[in-house]
Amino acid sequence: MKKNNKISAFEEKEGIHLTDVSNEASIAKIKNFRKRQPSVASLIQGIRDGDKTALSRAITLVESKNKTHLVQANQIIEACIADKKNTLRIGITGVPGVGKSTFIEVLGKYLTNQGKKVAVLAVDPTSSLSKGSILGDKTRMEVLVRDENAFIRPSPSEDSLGGVARKTRESIILCEAAHFDVILIETVGVGQSETAVHGMVDFFLLLKLAGAGDELQGIKRGIMEMTDTIVINKADGKNKQAANLAKIEFTRALHFYPPKENGWVPKVLQCSALENEGISEVWQTILNFKDATADAIYDKRKYQNKFWLLQTIEDNLKMQFYEDTAIQQQLEQLTTLVMNAKVSPFVAAEQLLALHQKKLK
Amino acid sequence: MKKNNKISAFEEKEGIHLTDVSNEASIAKIKNFRKRQPSVASLIQGIRDGDKTALSRAITLVESKNKTHLVQANQIIEACIADKKNTLRIGITGVPGVGKSTFIEVLGKYLTNQGKKVAVLAVDPTSSLSKGSILGDKTRMEVLVRDENAFIRPSPSEDSLGGVARKTRESIILCEAAHFDVILIETVGVGQSETAVHGMVDFFLLLKLAGAGDELQGIKRGIMEMTDTIVINKADGKNKQAANLAKIEFTRALHFYPPKENGWVPKVLQCSALENEGISEVWQTILNFKDATADAIYDKRKYQNKFWLLQTIEDNLKMQFYEDTAIQQQLEQLTTLVMNAKVSPFVAAEQLLALHQKKLK
Repeated sequence: MKKNNKISAFEEKEGIHLTDVSNEASIAKIKNFRKRQPSVASLIQGIRDGDKTALSRAITLVESKNKTHLVQANQIIEACIADKKNTLRIGITGVPGVGKSTFIEVLGKYLTNQGKKVAVLAVDPTSSLSKGSILGDKTRMEVLVRDENAFIRPSPSEDSLGGVARKTRESIILCEAAHFDVILIETVGVGQSETAVHGMVDFFLLLKLAGAGDELQGIKRGIMEMTDTIVINKADGKNKQAANLAKIEFTRALHFYPPKENGWVPKVLQCSALENEGISEVWQTILNFKDATADAIYDKRKYQNKFWLLQTIEDNLKMQFYEDTAIQQQLEQLTTLVMNAKVSPFVAAEQLLALHQKKLK
Repeated sequence: MKKNNKISAFEEKEGIHLTDVSNEASIAKIKNFRKRQPSVASLIQGIRDGDKTALSRAITLVESKNKTHLVQANQIIEACIADKKNTLRIGITGVPGVGKSTFIEVLGKYLTNQGKKVAVLAVDPTSSLSKGSILGDKTRMEVLVRDENAFIRPSPSEDSLGGVARKTRESIILCEAAHFDVILIETVGVGQSETAVHGMVDFFLLLKLAGAGDELQGIKRGIMEMTDTIVINKADGKNKQAANLAKIEFTRALHFYPPKENGWVPKVLQCSALENEGISEVWQTILNFKDATADAIYDKRKYQNKFWLLQTIEDNLKMQFYEDTAIQQQLEQLTTLVMNAKVSPFVAAEQLLALHQKKLK
């Protein structure tokens, strides 16, 4: 057909040709694929055998929005949750460009070389696979991704932080049941995601670059209190001097934050992930933390479990309220009145709660 | 009648004698008292006329648990809420013994001497009048309490922080409608009360003593980020040198916290409330803050109003859930299972939410 050749809508069209796909071989292939959809029991067994394909499939069920998948996912989680866990859950945060991927890859390789099994997960509520999540771009961890003892999984493509957090926490349980010793959880630090990651790890690591001037400028509120260790990355070549100054500055800064309940004094380290320098010191610090806080880690996990129970309840109660269409109409209007001091926030709240109550009944 | 003298139930009893209280004078007295219970309209007028008795009575209605009183209180609040407010709301916190009462009294007198009207409120969810609240013990502010231009009101005796916070916020509205220029809100810093006070004031002041050694030790997490100015009290006599060191230490510490959104750089000052020294510098700093942040104060109040709307809604949703007796029975059991990793927190949350939902319908 020539370019710009117009065809009338009344013109007779060709029929649709059947393609050759409905042959015996194709049918057998599809049937075979269907048969291979594994049962819950076989997935659980696969996870316990350390089979990465089974682990991957189970996480896919956890991440699915399909109700049947969710029932299956819950069955798998329930089976795996009580498995013994002498593991380390490490949260890693830092702004884009700080070198998180390289750092995680080098730390991961360092650990697999010691015979450890390492899982890498991510919490990044704004990204999906295609939207430039660091872990989504798997090619950036080319070496680790081919490592038999490593398992890398990008952030679930879910809009809400609550959803991503839940799926990541359940993935941790599955990875641990599959005998992964160290779980590295990355976050790019969008919104409240550091708090979510802090609420699911034993150790929280902040990756920084040596800056020029006030080192605290780029740090969000609350991060310094959460951090167990600051690692200044790219401390190599001409950055070395700035990294030394940054180390002094951060060490001083940490001194001005209230002490941690578990007695741990946060450390400041330097490394060059690119040059593979300082990684063993980072790992040694994490081991020192584990030794120093010993039982505190398991207590912390207990309280993290409780936190997620209550957090999930409260998030859902709020969601039910704010997704109530009757509420939405009134809320916007009342918020404006409340903000401009025309209506008391407490009176407005009472009105909205009464409306929601009526709807539920 | 003799002791141990048993009386048969069939025995005839004496009639009840009328006492002499039903005389003319008593009846007139009661009628007169009833008449003096002021109407909502007269209270509103009284408040606008700056009548402290009317203000006091209105606050009593706000604090009452009686439903009729609450309806009246809401009517008064609604009338007063939109009144123009060129006022300053100042939160003052500090541990017991730091000298808050003396500081507030001296600052209050300093302001009334300049012709300003000063109201002093408190947020102290754990105390009632009799339980040693600083403001409950009014005799500690003997001078200010007798000042025509001062109004002092202790913390409402309410158990929950949410209740105390609401009543205090409503009292602020009433005080401002009664033409008080400066509202000082004290908190003894129990639990989350600083956060509540921070959420209702323009300026947040932390009162400290010069310590011996690490000045940050006694400071709770989050307080340093909230503070607009640290005032080191009792900087007199032999404490002077320690106070100077503390000033240097706190100034350095504040430098290590992320900058504030409104651009204000928190200050560290010294004073001796007892010797009446440094009070004018404190006030000047507050005025500088007001000038420097100008419109930001009014924006902040808007967002504080919105915050209290959403906070009240969410507190109530949670309260409805946790006070559900069916939930209480299950929650305790499930929390233990969740903490010990026998049940996933998300699965447990779903179960409880379903139970609550069924109850509401």
